[in-house]
Amino acid sequence: MDLPDEDTIRILITTDNHVGYNENDPITCDDSWKTFHEIMMIAKDYQVDMILQSGDLFHINKPSKKSLYQVMRSIRLACMGDKPCELELLSDSSKVLGYSDFTNVNYEDPNFNISIPMFAISGNHDDATGDSLLCPMDILHVSGLVNHFGKVLETDKICLSPLLFQKGKTKLALYGLQSIREERLFRTFKEGGVTFEVPTIRDGEWFNLMCVHQNHIGHTNTAFLPEQFLPDFLDLVIWGHEHECIPNLVYNPIKEFNVLQPGSSVATSLCDAEAKSKYVFILEINYKQNKSQPRLIPIPLTTIRTFKMRNISLNEIPFLKPHDKESVTKYLIGQVDEMIDEANKETKEKLRQNGIEIDQMNQDDDLNELSITIPLPLIRLRVNYAGPTSSNKSNSGSGTITNSRIIVNDMLDYQVENPRRFSNRFVGRVANSNNIVQYYKRKKPTVARDKDKNAGPSNDQVGNLSVNNNENSNNNGELQIELLVNDLLNKMQLSLLPEVGFNDAIKKFVDKDEKTALKEFIDKELDNEVDLLVSSGQFLDKENPEDIKVLIKEVKRANTSRKKSVLSSHIASEEDSVNVNRVLPDDPSFTRKSLDKIDIVSRRSFKPTELVSSVDKTLKMQSNSIFRKSSPDSIVISDSDENIQSSDNDHIIMSGDSDDNRGEDYSKQKSSISNQSFTRRKNKLTGKLQASNSSKRKVAKTPRTDILESFLAKKRR
Amino acid sequence: MDLPDEDTIRILITTDNHVGYNENDPITCDDSWKTFHEIMMIAKDYQVDMILQSGDLFHINKPSKKSLYQVMRSIRLACMGDKPCELELLSDSSKVLGYSDFTNVNYEDPNFNISIPMFAISGNHDDATGDSLLCPMDILHVSGLVNHFGKVLETDKICLSPLLFQKGKTKLALYGLQSIREERLFRTFKEGGVTFEVPTIRDGEWFNLMCVHQNHIGHTNTAFLPEQFLPDFLDLVIWGHEHECIPNLVYNPIKEFNVLQPGSSVATSLCDAEAKSKYVFILEINYKQNKSQPRLIPIPLTTIRTFKMRNISLNEIPFLKPHDKESVTKYLIGQVDEMIDEANKETKEKLRQNGIEIDQMNQDDDLNELSITIPLPLIRLRVNYAGPTSSNKSNSGSGTITNSRIIVNDMLDYQVENPRRFSNRFVGRVANSNNIVQYYKRKKPTVARDKDKNAGPSNDQVGNLSVNNNENSNNNGELQIELLVNDLLNKMQLSLLPEVGFNDAIKKFVDKDEKTALKEFIDKELDNEVDLLVSSGQFLDKENPEDIKVLIKEVKRANTSRKKSVLSSHIASEEDSVNVNRVLPDDPSFTRKSLDKIDIVSRRSFKPTELVSSVDKTLKMQSNSIFRKSSPDSIVISDSDENIQSSDNDHIIMSGDSDDNRGEDYSKQKSSISNQSFTRRKNKLTGKLQASNSSKRKVAKTPRTDILESFLAKKRR
Repeated sequence: MDLPDEDTIRILITTDNHVGYNENDPITCDDSWKTFHEIMMIAKDYQVDMILQSGDLFHINKPSKKSLYQVMRSIRLACMGDKPCELELLSDSSKVLGYSDFTNVNYEDPNFNISIPMFAISGNHDDATGDSLLCPMDILHVSGLVNHFGKVLETDKICLSPLLFQKGKTKLALYGLQSIREERLFRTFKEGGVTFEVPTIRDGEWFNLMCVHQNHIGHTNTAFLPEQFLPDFLDLVIWGHEHECIPNLVYNPIKEFNVLQPGSSVATSLCDAEAKSKYVFILEINYKQNKSQPRLIPIPLTTIRTFKMRNISLNEIPFLKPHDKESVTKYLIGQVDEMIDEANKETKEKLRQNGIEIDQMNQDDDLNELSITIPLPLIRLRVNYAGPTSSNKSNSGSGTITNSRIIVNDMLDYQVENPRRFSNRFVGRVANSNNIVQYYKRKKPTVARDKDKNAGPSNDQVGNLSVNNNENSNNNGELQIELLVNDLLNKMQLSLLPEVGFNDAIKKFVDKDEKTALKEFIDKELDNEVDLLVSSGQFLDKENPEDIKVLIKEVKRANTSRKKSVLSSHIASEEDSVNVNRVLPDDPSFTRKSLDKIDIVSRRSFKPTELVSSVDKTLKMQSNSIFRKSSPDSIVISDSDENIQSSDNDHIIMSGDSDDNRGEDYSKQKSSISNQSFTRRKNKLTGKLQASNSSKRKVAKTPRTDILESFLAKKRR
Repeated sequence: MDLPDEDTIRILITTDNHVGYNENDPITCDDSWKTFHEIMMIAKDYQVDMILQSGDLFHINKPSKKSLYQVMRSIRLACMGDKPCELELLSDSSKVLGYSDFTNVNYEDPNFNISIPMFAISGNHDDATGDSLLCPMDILHVSGLVNHFGKVLETDKICLSPLLFQKGKTKLALYGLQSIREERLFRTFKEGGVTFEVPTIRDGEWFNLMCVHQNHIGHTNTAFLPEQFLPDFLDLVIWGHEHECIPNLVYNPIKEFNVLQPGSSVATSLCDAEAKSKYVFILEINYKQNKSQPRLIPIPLTTIRTFKMRNISLNEIPFLKPHDKESVTKYLIGQVDEMIDEANKETKEKLRQNGIEIDQMNQDDDLNELSITIPLPLIRLRVNYAGPTSSNKSNSGSGTITNSRIIVNDMLDYQVENPRRFSNRFVGRVANSNNIVQYYKRKKPTVARDKDKNAGPSNDQVGNLSVNNNENSNNNGELQIELLVNDLLNKMQLSLLPEVGFNDAIKKFVDKDEKTALKEFIDKELDNEVDLLVSSGQFLDKENPEDIKVLIKEVKRANTSRKKSVLSSHIASEEDSVNVNRVLPDDPSFTRKSLDKIDIVSRRSFKPTELVSSVDKTLKMQSNSIFRKSSPDSIVISDSDENIQSSDNDHIIMSGDSDDNRGEDYSKQKSSISNQSFTRRKNKLTGKLQASNSSKRKVAKTPRTDILESFLAKKRR
């Protein structure tokens, strides 16, 4: 492809590359980074002016050295070079990159020779965690290979400042918003906590582009980002997080902007949405175009493994009988064989189009030979094994069975082979030979059910986007951490640790592999509780340990009742509550050649009197006042983060002292979790409490670390 | 400091920065990277031409995002800039960096503006692991911030090629050798497997500098790198790995080279060697100098936490009685108080020298206030609690007691307080308030004992280097993995898995946090064993499972006896067996301005007839022949790596099949470890064995993953 003309900004758009996905699998281990490399090479070939990545570049937020290495290698190969980047940066990048030590965009840093700058936001998979709140994108940013933008430091007060670019006569304002927990972001939008800054000069000349990484359509009332929340001065929204590729712009007639959902570049779950073709996109923006019709070129990705999916209801197959396991198995094998053939044909066709011809002999002759020369396909066969006459409604939707033999609780259901045993027949012919087949039981016809699931609430929403949220729709028998924890808490009488925060800490420990999450959580709880006790004058007067116990019980009781009332639900209304700040710069005469950065917003912009909104101003004011009225209690919707962060944690944990006479077992337990913090706290108290406390203490059991470790082991399997 | 003159190559030398050490500790978490930053800033201030790092830049081989971020940030701030690097590269760097995708040294890459190139080797802590054999230095290399040299791909055939630099009239040949397992490297040297390439032109004009990262002095016969092994054409060896800083060049009169042991920049263990002052070094090389006397300037590091260590034998204190626990505790508290005062004085003096004056009021007034303004010291008090008259020799050296109360097996020993309880008194005044005191019991006077330990075999060696190997000397009650594993193996009858390889895999799992190490090990074993069975014609004939069992038992018996004979010890002799290859280039006329890289060695150089050794050639030939004579068996000295890698693993593990009727528990166990591999193997066998095997199979128990996870948890605590 030729160079873009002097007024055209050409952008490569990709998202959800999930580099590192399945990297321990012997067959698919390299899929993710190889596709990422292909994408980077496309960017280079097309000589784009910029690469935009809309989150989840990495599959986990602690990428392996291999993932990091491959990503850095590909970016270095694609983005560095002598070709000058023709984008002129018109704004002060430190407003966007100010969180970092390196506030300049990389292509303006004199120490790097960047020909294609890459701009990326962090997603929910590669989010910032730990003490230092660093995400993998920060590593790439400090290395100078990527510009990590859209970083949010306070989730309840978000100010989005654009990066302003110009090439020839075309102007681009680029906004980014990192992935934020859905309910949190929803609330912040509803409360008017999100402010967009817009350039005030050359109004209307800017193409306003925004990258987000959120659920596109809600699974609960508040667990998504409604398009209505976004301001209508935007021209295009790049929507990361959703893995289904929709290879065209979808126009939102109410907000008058386009939405592009590029989808993932690797299939991370074997569902309908991921079975569709995968693309990256070249976007061309030119000042002569109608802004609602930028040029979009989908580029099919050639390194994607062919993925075939099929749904079968056994009760629709006339010649199969429920008790005849052998025939059912035979039939299913036939189905898989067909799918493999289809997939291989498709793969070969793809390879042929890219100039790779598969040997004719191989094609007809030997299937094993063939499987060596072309990449093995991913195959998923979903089988409804519900019997033809069983109509027990309470059984419908009883879930899928993957790891154990099907327990025949309804004698009329079809007998099927163990799924792993079934799948293993196809070793060497498919890439996922452990989980080809997935059994489920449902009375409704399969087709209706799937439509139901995937396109569910889309009619309420603008556009007809069908959605796959790979976090929520995962019903492959994954462990539900919350259930396990609650179960544990019930069994172990851990009533003094706040449940919500505990769940959150365990989630971090399991999902994000944050080894210190539990220790930090318990340390913080202990700190809060000791502070509470120390600051209570009432407490310090008491010398009798029994009185102290009574005090603690009271605090605990008060807490429990308060917490219940806080969890009342909050009805989501759909008003627009986005703030858009506009400020006239001191010098309104704007010349393109001026080297001074445009002052987008100054301190003054936060005064409400100066707000000039391009969206419905009165509506915004109304909505603000609506939310001011509601009581603070009713706003909290299962918002565990805040409960941990705030200092009003008032459950009390009492831990034993370090008397040598205690049982060895207990002391190990204690030291494994919060030894240091405890002893620190203890010393704080020692002066005043030593005499009264050393005699009797109630020991609250804390969960043993190896239980948690075994969760981890299960999860990782 | 002024710029070095036009003929002087100025090098900053550092090693063992261990960035990330103790990074979860609330007090010392930032010590390691802050000191690394100080070092980088020294490099910048002194305007050095090059930074040399001799291994263990990171404390672990999977550094946290924070460690990676801080290191990259410091390097980017120090090493990038407009000042041109005045070193001229005269050799083809792809001979050294050829393992990478980026074979150019970073300061010659047109895409980076490097003013100070950094060259680093990988140590034993940041070594390469995993599938992709990547170490953290590879990440830094691909980012363009560091030149990762000294990488060895085959440990039994090492060819060391130098990077050749010139500045003005001074020439530098730089060699690097990554950390290699001690016994392995020892053997490779002994077998003549290490070859040094040397430039053949302008012979004698080169300053030959080498970086290594090995034990300096042996703890066993072969677990170190003797200086004698290194060729005597070298002028200076930078010795990483040893944490004691020896702030001067140590001349080896036999080899006629200097050795510099820079030591670590953060104390990773509280022992004598780490209590010494810590420095980095500026080395200046000039062609006018005598090569054995380069200019060396030690730069004291100011961000190092003051560390005071004291040894006490309670039986030398006349007024203390063994049964008087209270007085002993009081005395020890007094000792620690003294040490804290000493340390604080030293810290203040250091700060004063760096222009930071501690408020006079604070100094005398309030100790708590003081501790906020100056960094808390590290304090270690070693206490010999052996009683005055106890002379039970079998008790001497019974080890230290850290976590549990001392069990008084000798009534005459001094009664002492629980060490953690004792240490916790000093919270807020010392940085290591969990482990200030360390009790041990030993009849010999303390001073002699410590000399014994630290300076042990140094008299046999050249120079008078006292040594601390922080891996081996750790007697803080750390878990001995081998013992645990052997214990487990005995209990669980895991006799079919080779013990050596199993130990190694668990070490990787625990020490290096390689989650797939066990899976990979068992997969490999299974592969080998199935291959063995399949390839055995005898086996395939048998239809009776009993006969198969007999066959397996035979193989196993044969193995066990073979393995024992292999483990015979190997007497280390101290001959020099280094190969030095010299090759005349096609064009012997060498001009400085010639842009052609010097051809150091061509393919021809490997022919023995062309070897021209600068070291004792005849000796080398002799030594080669000596080692050829010894039988291959007798060379293997606890060399577990090779046992895993080689395909002659002949222990057999039989695993159960996936019959649905098996217990749930067992199937979980199995799938957690080697599900995929097993089923793959199984399918391989299915065709021929299905009939005979499906009836009976002996299940060998494999250890459950959560046991290992709990090791991990203990280790990390």
